[in-house]
Order: sequence, then structure tokens, then C-alpha cells
Amino acid sequence: MDTLKRALSFDIGGTKTNYAVIDEEGNFITKKIKVPTPDSAEKIFEMFKSIIEENYSSIDIVTISTAGAVNLENTGVCSSTPNLPSGYPELEFSKLTDKKVFIENDANCAVWAEYKCGAAKGCNNTLIITLGTGIGGGVISNGEPVRGYTGAALEVGSMKIFADKRQKCTCGRYDCWESYASGTGLKNTAAAMAKTSPEYKTGLYKDKLPEELTTYDITDGVQKGDMFSIQVFNQWQEYIFVGLVSLVDIFNPEVVVISGGMGKFANIEMLEEKINKESVVAPVKIRHAEMGNDSGMIGAALLGLRFI
Amino acid sequence: MDTLKRALSFDIGGTKTNYAVIDEEGNFITKKIKVPTPDSAEKIFEMFKSIIEENYSSIDIVTISTAGAVNLENTGVCSSTPNLPSGYPELEFSKLTDKKVFIENDANCAVWAEYKCGAAKGCNNTLIITLGTGIGGGVISNGEPVRGYTGAALEVGSMKIFADKRQKCTCGRYDCWESYASGTGLKNTAAAMAKTSPEYKTGLYKDKLPEELTTYDITDGVQKGDMFSIQVFNQWQEYIFVGLVSLVDIFNPEVVVISGGMGKFANIEMLEEKINKESVVAPVKIRHAEMGNDSGMIGAALLGLRFI
Repeated sequence: MDTLKRALSFDIGGTKTNYAVIDEEGNFITKKIKVPTPDSAEKIFEMFKSIIEENYSSIDIVTISTAGAVNLENTGVCSSTPNLPSGYPELEFSKLTDKKVFIENDANCAVWAEYKCGAAKGCNNTLIITLGTGIGGGVISNGEPVRGYTGAALEVGSMKIFADKRQKCTCGRYDCWESYASGTGLKNTAAAMAKTSPEYKTGLYKDKLPEELTTYDITDGVQKGDMFSIQVFNQWQEYIFVGLVSLVDIFNPEVVVISGGMGKFANIEMLEEKINKESVVAPVKIRHAEMGNDSGMIGAALLGLRFI
Repeated sequence: MDTLKRALSFDIGGTKTNYAVIDEEGNFITKKIKVPTPDSAEKIFEMFKSIIEENYSSIDIVTISTAGAVNLENTGVCSSTPNLPSGYPELEFSKLTDKKVFIENDANCAVWAEYKCGAAKGCNNTLIITLGTGIGGGVISNGEPVRGYTGAALEVGSMKIFADKRQKCTCGRYDCWESYASGTGLKNTAAAMAKTSPEYKTGLYKDKLPEELTTYDITDGVQKGDMFSIQVFNQWQEYIFVGLVSLVDIFNPEVVVISGGMGKFANIEMLEEKINKESVVAPVKIRHAEMGNDSGMIGAALLGLRFI
């Protein structure tokens, strides 16, 4: 008879919410179900509540992977969450049910999932970097997540990679790593390089304005051998490298996992070689993430199930 | 009757070695004694051995605060230690005595001492930055030191604060934070700014070559109101700020402790205000270190005594 404990685990995103029942070994007990994220905090609360009621008898805990910083008690969100409805951070998640409700930041869930079941399995010191529209991060240090004083640690996208106010980030600050090395960063780099590149003027995108170049243009241009796209892409990878080698020197991880929508484009062999040549700490392995879109749900379930 | 456990604790430096017997509350049971660090690894081993024999009956453990990365078992040094004799990292410290010998990196000892007895007392999430010839660092995350996969974490001096290979560091790499924000960084900044500064040509140091300017010249010049020195000093603090705000966003600490020979010159009120305006995580307190030169010995003792 199966005696493994089970979590009803949610991954709430700006447009979609995924959920499933997952056991303490990371197995899916139910299929993953995808529903639209409601457009108000009250409706989100009601959605959680009704799904919990449906699954009540077969679960031991409710776990939620969320955007934003989560308090140290893992009971609520304590930062703004721009992609979720106003009022969401103030929800009293513990009132959803009489079972324990455990909430954790999505990057911390993702690094835990990769550490327990994925690309960093068994590696007690692991760094995950999520390259998407912005850059997120999570760290396992000696087998435990690094969460910081208020649960907001690993805001690595805000790390500055220039000290002379060179480029304004969408956040209003200057020279955040994510304004150079995320998807937005690739677009920024393309726009900046187009202004001076001779290869742009004769290349695939000569009829597009610099500001109109998209991340897709560049990754597609690389596939097609467009020299300008290749130059932009290489500079983008140099920006990834500069931030990543700093983080490797700071955390001395055994493995770095690269995830996120833009992560799949990163040349991890090149990054690993270059970082291990430059870093002052022990050699590190760079890996693509293996847990995909389920990492939030699985990580939240496995983190939460430790406490019951 | 006193039943507190006691460590014979050493702090080994390039020229001097300090030691004392310290109890588990951080009290000095003997006065601190300072001896020259011997000039060979064998003599260092013999020195440790003879001091341990003298104190054998009154101690429970031997603890050592050392330069370099220390292995995860806290039994030996696993990196090079440029300021100590060759052969030092290979010493088999466990063979010094039949009591437990516990070794830890000096920055980890310092942050532990500040966390247990000093400027960060009781703060489970603390970052220490040591501004000296270079820059060192240590972190307490949820009450435990962040050590990394091979004990080499917090090489924060190697964090890059420019991404375009602007200034070569003494380590041979480009744009390490410590080549801008350490004592060496202050000297580098003075030399660089002298080349274009009108205030230099009319100021206190107009008869000195840019490369001859010392850290003392600048800190003394600031006291005397020399405009060039003030400009250099402000730029140096800007470099400290740029690296520190990144580390605050990465670790989300409750307190940052600034230590080291150059640390006393940092304007911590200004840094705290500026960092809390710029950082994306919760407000942080910036404090000068309080444990001074004893932090290595005390931190090593308190860390080691946890394990017996």
C-alpha cells in the first residue's frame, strides 16, 4: 500500500495556473491541469479553495509556487507581483483550508526541483538562473535554499554589470544584469549594436529599425547565418558570462542550472569552459534545466512535504 | 564551577600568528599572545604543536582561522595561500593532537564572530565585507555560513563591475570589484583620475606622479580638504556601493558588516541610505565591524565548539 505523503501543488502564473497532486518522491498522482489565472485576487482565492475541496481527501498539504518574495514562514507573499492582480500579495493563504498551506517563490521551487529530481540531482550546492523576460535565480547552499532576511534573496537580475550608468533598465535603475542578459537584454543589445554595425546595414534585418528587432529575429538570424545576428548573440552570451562568473565566485556551486524561455539558447558548453577558465573557485558544471514547466509545482510540493 | 567548553584558537596571518584560549561564550580565558609566523610549513606545524602541548589540559578543541578556502570537513586548506609559506596548504592539521582540530576560512570566522558577539549579533542573515588590500566576504544564511561546494564561496572581490574589460586586476583578470573598491582600488582610482583631473594639477599632490599616489595620500588629503582627494574618495565609495548593492540584492541580508583596514574609511551612513534607495530587496543596516583583530580567533573558536 502506498504510504507516500501527497501535496496538491499549484504553480500560479500571470495568465495560467497549473496544478496536480504530487507525492513526496515527485511523482504525479493526478494529471497536471491548466486553468486560466482569474483576473482578481478574490477570484484566485475562490479558485484555490474549490480545487482544494475537490482534492481534500487525498492530500496532506497544499503547496503553491508563486512569483514574488515569500515570507520566512512560507505563509504569504511579501513583495509586489506585477503580473498578478492587485490584492494578490495580501491573500491569507492559510485560510484556504484546515490543512497546512506552504508557499514558496517560484525560483526557489525550481532550484529545489532540479536539486531533488533534475539537472542538479544530489548536488548540495546548486545555483539556478532563469533567463526569460528578466533574470531570476535560486541557490541551494549545503542542501538548503538561500532565502535571505525577508525571503527575497537571489534578485540576481538586479546585479550591476557596469558601474558608470551606461544603460537604463525597465526597472528605472542602471545597468541591471537583466537589462543585458535576459530576453529583453538580447533585444537591447540588438538595438544598441545595430546603430554602429556595418553587418546590420547589409544583413538580414537591414530594413528593420534597430528598436523593432526582436529576440526571435536574432535567434532565427543566427540559425540562418546572418552575421549581425551572430555578433549580437555572441555579445549577449558575453553578458550572460560576465554575470554568471561573478555568481560562481560568490556561491562556489557544484552545478549551475540554466532555465527559462531564453535559457535554451545559451551555449552551455562554451559558458562552462569560459567560466572555469576565469573563475577563482573550483570548476563548476553548467547544465540546462531538466524539469521544464513542472519545476514550480514539483519543487513546491517537495519543499512543503518536508514539513509535515 | 565553570563548565563552558574551551578552544585553543589560532589566527594565522602572513607575518603574525595570534592565539588564546576562548570559551564557548567568546570570553578570553588566557590573554591573546602574538608570535611571528614561521617561515616554513614545517616550522608552522611545530609551532602549533608546541603551543597545543602547553595548553592541552585546559582545552576541548583546537581551532584555526586561516587564509584560503577550507575543505567542507574543516580539516584542511584546499586552495593556494599566497601570503603563507609553500607547503602550508598540505599540512595535516588533524595530526597536531588527539583532540579535534577545526579549521575555517578567516572571513567565515569573522562573520561568525560578528553574528555571535558583534555588529550583527542575533542577525541570522548577515553579510560581511572586508576591505583591505583586496576584498573578502562571508555570509550567514538562516544562521549558517554559506561555504559552497569546496568551501571557497564568497570570493566577492572577483565579482566583475564592468563587462567591457576596462581595467586589469593584479590577479590578471579584468574588472574585479577589488581592483576598484579595495585599498588597491583606491590607489588605482587615484592614478586613473589624476590623468584627467584639473583639481589634481592645482591640488595637494600636484608634484606627485599619478602612480605614486597612496591610499594614505587620499585619506589624508580628504581630511585636509584637498578637492582632488575628495573626488577620488567619492568615486571609490561609488565603486564600493555598486558591488555592495548587487550583493544586498543577491543575499537580502538584515545587516552588512564592513571590516578590514580600509573599511573604517567607508561612510556607512551614506552607503546605507544609497543602498536602501537602490536595492530591490528589504532595507538593510550597514555597520562597521566591532570585533576587530580578534574576530578570526573568536569566530573559529565559536564555530569549532559547536561540534564537540
